[in-house]
Amino acid sequence: MSWIHDPAFRRDAPFGPQTLPYGVVETEDGPGLAVRVGDHALPLRPLAESLGAELAAHTSADSLDPLLRAGRPVWSALRARLTELVTAEVAPKGGTLLPLAETTTRLPFTVADYVDFYSSRHHAENVGRIFRPDGAPLLPNWTHLPVGYHGRAGTVVVSGTDVVRPHGQRRGEQGPVFGPCERLDIEAEVGFVCGGPTEGRVSTGQAAEHVFGVVLVNDWSARDIQAWEYQPLGPFLSKSFATSISAWVTPLEAFAVARVTPPALPNPLLDYLVEDQPWGLDLSLAVDWNGTRVSAPPFAEMSWTFAQQLAHMSVNGATVRAGDLFASGTVSGPQKRQRGCFLELTWGGAEPITLDDGSPRTFLQDGDTVRITGTAPGEDDSLVGLAEVVGTVVPADSGTERADRG
Amino acid sequence: MSWIHDPAFRRDAPFGPQTLPYGVVETEDGPGLAVRVGDHALPLRPLAESLGAELAAHTSADSLDPLLRAGRPVWSALRARLTELVTAEVAPKGGTLLPLAETTTRLPFTVADYVDFYSSRHHAENVGRIFRPDGAPLLPNWTHLPVGYHGRAGTVVVSGTDVVRPHGQRRGEQGPVFGPCERLDIEAEVGFVCGGPTEGRVSTGQAAEHVFGVVLVNDWSARDIQAWEYQPLGPFLSKSFATSISAWVTPLEAFAVARVTPPALPNPLLDYLVEDQPWGLDLSLAVDWNGTRVSAPPFAEMSWTFAQQLAHMSVNGATVRAGDLFASGTVSGPQKRQRGCFLELTWGGAEPITLDDGSPRTFLQDGDTVRITGTAPGEDDSLVGLAEVVGTVVPADSGTERADRG
Repeated sequence: MSWIHDPAFRRDAPFGPQTLPYGVVETEDGPGLAVRVGDHALPLRPLAESLGAELAAHTSADSLDPLLRAGRPVWSALRARLTELVTAEVAPKGGTLLPLAETTTRLPFTVADYVDFYSSRHHAENVGRIFRPDGAPLLPNWTHLPVGYHGRAGTVVVSGTDVVRPHGQRRGEQGPVFGPCERLDIEAEVGFVCGGPTEGRVSTGQAAEHVFGVVLVNDWSARDIQAWEYQPLGPFLSKSFATSISAWVTPLEAFAVARVTPPALPNPLLDYLVEDQPWGLDLSLAVDWNGTRVSAPPFAEMSWTFAQQLAHMSVNGATVRAGDLFASGTVSGPQKRQRGCFLELTWGGAEPITLDDGSPRTFLQDGDTVRITGTAPGEDDSLVGLAEVVGTVVPADSGTERADRG
Repeated sequence: MSWIHDPAFRRDAPFGPQTLPYGVVETEDGPGLAVRVGDHALPLRPLAESLGAELAAHTSADSLDPLLRAGRPVWSALRARLTELVTAEVAPKGGTLLPLAETTTRLPFTVADYVDFYSSRHHAENVGRIFRPDGAPLLPNWTHLPVGYHGRAGTVVVSGTDVVRPHGQRRGEQGPVFGPCERLDIEAEVGFVCGGPTEGRVSTGQAAEHVFGVVLVNDWSARDIQAWEYQPLGPFLSKSFATSISAWVTPLEAFAVARVTPPALPNPLLDYLVEDQPWGLDLSLAVDWNGTRVSAPPFAEMSWTFAQQLAHMSVNGATVRAGDLFASGTVSGPQKRQRGCFLELTWGGAEPITLDDGSPRTFLQDGDTVRITGTAPGEDDSLVGLAEVVGTVVPADSGTERADRG
C-alpha cells in the first residue's frame, strides 16, 4: 500500500505507478520538475536527498532540458528510483503532493527543432481525395519514405493554452482575401521528445536511445490558409500559429508491451528504413469536441514508426539533439469515427457532425474546446496514460494596436 | 588616423568603420564577442571598461544571444560607442586585435527558428520552368504573398564548416534508390537575424525593430532528393543537412543608404504587406566556385523585402523571438550570370559551365569550394560588407559504423 492516497493512482488507471510521466509545475520555490502520480504532481527538487546526488543533478532545473541531455542510462535509473519511492509504504523525505487541479503546468522542455510527419495512410488518402479529387489519393513517394516537414518550434505551447484564431490569406473569387481563418481544424497526433547525445544518421535500431518520451500533440491547422499557401514549399502560416502538446511526457520505457508491427507497405523498404524489431505502438487516442467524443483514432494503424521517422530524418547527416520534437502526423484509422482531424471527419466541411448538445459542427467555432487523450496497454494488464492535450479557441485579435504602429 | 593600422580598415573597403559586424571568436579566455575591423577581430570582453557597465553586460557572453535580446536602443548605443572607439587615435584600454587569418570563428548566435523564403521572381520562374515545363512558371499565390517554409535550425553552421555530401532517396527507374546525392547545389541567399522582444503580428513598419542584422546564407540543396521528396509538404531532407551563414553579422543600421524600392508586383498587395518606406536593399552578391566568379546576383531584384517577410511570417500571431533567422530565398537576377544556384545556372544540368581551370561543372563535386560575398553602398561613398560564407564539399560518410548498430 503506497503512501500516495490518490484513487487515480492505480495500475488500471492511466497515471498509476506504471506510467510516471514528467512535467514542470509551478511551486512555492518557482517552477520545477515533477512526476505525475494519479491526479497529483510530485515535485522532484524537494526529493533530492531521496534521489541521490547524481539523479538530483539532472532534476533540479526548471525544465526537463538537463534530463533530456543526460541520456538513457540516467533516464532508466531515475525511473527505477522513482518507482521505488512512489510505491513505498512510507513517504520519502521531501515527498509532497500537489493536486493537479490547483497546480499550473508549464511547457516542460525547450523545443529545439519541430518536425511533423504524415504517417497515417488513411489520413494521407483522405486528404488526397479531398484536395486532389482527380488524382491518385497517395503521391508516389508516400509508401517509400515517411513524408515530413519542419514546423515552428517557437509556437509550441503547453496543453491548456488558449488558441487565438489566426488571420491569414485565403483564396477568394477575385483574388486572395485577408481575415480570420474560417476553416480552423485540429490534428490529433502523437509526439516524440528527443534526448541523449547530438548525432546524425541514427539507425532504426538506435532510435529508442534518442527518444526520451511521448506526448500528445494537437497541430492546429487553418485549412483555408493552407490551401492557398502550400504550393510549392508546403504548409507554413496555416500551422505555425500554435501547436499544443501534453504537459506531461510519458517515458518511452512505459510502452514496452505496447509495441506492435505496423501495417505492411505495398513495396519493399530501403535498408535504412527496415526495423529489426518493430516500433509500432498500440495507442488508443480519443478526441472530445466540447465534451462530445467525436473520434477514437488508433495509433497502431500508422504505417511509419517513430524509429523509421528518426532514421529518415537523420539519414542525410542532419543531427538530432535533445529537445527536438517530432510528431506522427494526424492519426486516422479506416473508420469514419477514427479520423483525427475535422477536415476528414466532415469531408471538407460537406458532412457536418452533431455534438451531444445538438449543435452541428464542420470546423472550429470561437469558444470551442478540444481535448485529446490517449492510453496504451501496460505490463500486467495495466493502463499507460498519455497526458491530455486540451485547448480552447478564442476570437481572432483585432490587430488594431499593432496595425497602428505600422 | 585610427589606432587600428590595418590596410583593409578603410571606408572604401567592406569592413571599414562604416560596417562593424559582430561575431564570436575563440580567444585565450574562451569564446567571446568581437567586432570585425578590416581583417582583424576586436574582442569586446576586454573592452568592458571602455564600453561602460550597461553595454558590457550585453557583450560579455560567449554568443550574441544576450545582445540580440537587448533590442534596438542597446544595439544603437553599442554601435555608436564602438564607432568612437575604433576611429579614435589612441587605442582604448583592452583594445587588442586578433588577425582573422589566425582566429577561429564560431556560430555567432543560437538559431531559434529558421525560415527560408522564395522571394526572387527570376529564381521562382526559372525553377518553375525547369520542374514544371508544362505549367505556368509562377504559381498563383506567388505574387500575393512571400512564399516560405520552415527549415532546420539545428544544422545551421558557421562559414568555413565542411559540408558532407548527404545520402538520401532519389527517384530511380525501378522505384527509389538510396545513395549519396548526385545533384548537390548551392543557394546564394541573404539572411536576417532577429532580436528584441518576442512578439506576434509585427507590422512592416515595425519590422526593422525586430531585425538585428544581416548575414549571407548558403542554403545547400540536394536537388535529386528534393525532386522525389517535396510533394506535398515541401523540401525536407534535401535542405536540412546543412545551411551555412556568415561568421559576422552586419548590423541593419549599416544599410541605411542601401534602401531601394523593390520591383513592382503585378497586383495590389493586401494591406498588411504594404510598406510605408520600402525595405528593398541594394546588395551585390558574388558567387565563386573554386575561385571562378560564376555569378553576381543582385539583391535589389528581390520582389519581397525582409519587412514584408517578417510581417507575413507573424500575421497569423506566430511570435518572432531573438535568434530567429529568416533567409530571402535564392537571389537571382534577370541575366544568366546573375542566377544564385547551379540548378538555374546550368539549367537543370543541361548546360555545364566552365571554371577558369577549364573543368566543366553542373553540380558540386567532392572537394569543390563555394564562396559567397556581398557588399552594399554605404554613407559618403563607403562600402558596407557582408561577411563571406564559404564551404567545401567533402565525400559522403560511408555510414558503415552507424549502420552496424542498426
